[in-house]
Amino acid sequence: MHKETLEDIGEKELINRLRKFMPKNQASDDCALIKTKNNNLLINNDSLVENVHFNDISIGPQDLGWKAVISNLSDLLSSGSQKTLGITISLILPSKTEWVWVEELYKGMNKALKKYGGIILGGDCSKGSQKTISITAFGIQGELELKRNACKPGDIILTTGIHGLSKLGFMINNKVDFDNNVSLNKRLIRKSIKHFCRPEVYPFFLKNLLKSRSNKKRRRIGCTDSSDGLFQALQDLTISSKCKAIINYEKIPKDKDWPKGDIWDEYYFFGGEDYELVFSLPKKWAKNLTKLDKNINEIGYFSKGEPSIKFIDKCKNKLLKNAPFRHF
Amino acid sequence: MHKETLEDIGEKELINRLRKFMPKNQASDDCALIKTKNNNLLINNDSLVENVHFNDISIGPQDLGWKAVISNLSDLLSSGSQKTLGITISLILPSKTEWVWVEELYKGMNKALKKYGGIILGGDCSKGSQKTISITAFGIQGELELKRNACKPGDIILTTGIHGLSKLGFMINNKVDFDNNVSLNKRLIRKSIKHFCRPEVYPFFLKNLLKSRSNKKRRRIGCTDSSDGLFQALQDLTISSKCKAIINYEKIPKDKDWPKGDIWDEYYFFGGEDYELVFSLPKKWAKNLTKLDKNINEIGYFSKGEPSIKFIDKCKNKLLKNAPFRHF
Repeated sequence: MHKETLEDIGEKELINRLRKFMPKNQASDDCALIKTKNNNLLINNDSLVENVHFNDISIGPQDLGWKAVISNLSDLLSSGSQKTLGITISLILPSKTEWVWVEELYKGMNKALKKYGGIILGGDCSKGSQKTISITAFGIQGELELKRNACKPGDIILTTGIHGLSKLGFMINNKVDFDNNVSLNKRLIRKSIKHFCRPEVYPFFLKNLLKSRSNKKRRRIGCTDSSDGLFQALQDLTISSKCKAIINYEKIPKDKDWPKGDIWDEYYFFGGEDYELVFSLPKKWAKNLTKLDKNINEIGYFSKGEPSIKFIDKCKNKLLKNAPFRHF
Repeated sequence: MHKETLEDIGEKELINRLRKFMPKNQASDDCALIKTKNNNLLINNDSLVENVHFNDISIGPQDLGWKAVISNLSDLLSSGSQKTLGITISLILPSKTEWVWVEELYKGMNKALKKYGGIILGGDCSKGSQKTISITAFGIQGELELKRNACKPGDIILTTGIHGLSKLGFMINNKVDFDNNVSLNKRLIRKSIKHFCRPEVYPFFLKNLLKSRSNKKRRRIGCTDSSDGLFQALQDLTISSKCKAIINYEKIPKDKDWPKGDIWDEYYFFGGEDYELVFSLPKKWAKNLTKLDKNINEIGYFSKGEPSIKFIDKCKNKLLKNAPFRHF
């Protein structure tokens, strides 16, 4: 008899099933929470596995260390962390790993922490066949609770920065034959590789969110990051918040030299690893924020309805049919 | 040119080098520390890798889940944690892993948490070729600071429980040909397998330590656990505390049916995974404690001198020459 495997049930279903082992109030978002008398502590876990999440061809150890930290800080920020305390690191490495690789990895991690705050709190290292970097990051919960399930019908959907660049950088570094009909200019190539190897997070996000706040009663804000791509971020928000996302394709911020065409739309929507924030706010708040912060753009709104994503420009809806199915 | 690998430098040296990336006050013990206004938070990381730390032959998933939690709780206790808050879990699993395996693993983890306190706070799961369970555990620092580097010359060395049993259980479950000349009784076989598959920690330790306290000025106590064996625990204490351990072989607590002979001494000293506590106290405090708690025994004392371990009974010193060298 075939027993059900993780491949059969898929990643999302696996996460749902594992949540049943957690207390109900704990089991909601990317970050776990420890309540203390003064501050609540946000905790985030993220693992990078060789040949699943990275390979030695496309990224060097120092960039990888940087990126592993950024991926965790992005999750903390998208949960409303006002300050990063630090990280613990659990490494699994083959015995043949060169010391210099590990040293460079740690240098990259410390560079990212130096830029965005936090220290290496501790860690352990074990032998294994596949390089794995598992980071647990700690932040202090700010005044606002940012949650996937806190979007409301009528909210404006916003995003920081630009998507798709990291995917393009990945394809360039891996020499993927992405589109021979297009010649990319050097600036875009350099920018994309930088987005892939040294992504950044947006530390002023929370400050600007508080500055532009129009409604002091609203403490819970719908938010996630685009680490798995803009489409996945929107889908996670719609499913968790049980509402419908209406996207205005024309308003989506793109690099000025980003090529046109369906395949380039796909890279943009399904790319991932851009670590931008995707979130929703009441109209007035959204207006205040985009006025204050030119890196943030409105891209649509939420309405009542079954969890789904639709474009205002209907001819763009075919794009969503190409959404990749996420296997385990 | 041969570049230095992790195999070349070994586990201990690797840990030393990685500590240089941490702030100095942070880089001392197994557990990391986050200071908050009211309580200090102890954080422990521990990973179990398939075919390095466990295999499917010797241990089932529910026992493995139990043990993964115990291994972390033991580190928290040996750092002076007064209460376990919970754990986050980072799983790496091959896609072919059966769901029932994961379910049993989580059941085992929740059983251990139910017994000793704490909840599953969160986690993530990624695809990889080798099953890996990486746990981060959180506890609240109690009144006493338990540290590897806090033993003092003149302190009495003590240990909870009995060592070697888990190693014997491992050998029985793996059908290792350990000693054909010895026939073990059923009670010892059952007990050893239980110690290997369902090890326990000693939650009253800190309470009894506080109850028997003779010197309220001493807040820092030398302590570690025997997860890597009694010998390794003693060695870690002597090196971190820069003093010499003198062990009284006759006083070492053994199971009443534990066989005699050099090989059985080796299993006892170099076994590991017993998760007993090995620590040191001033004479009077040690006396009070062993009176109060019959599971705790004096096994020697620390004196001034180069970090080393010696037996009072000199003919037992040959045992230490067989100490296994820990490769990466």
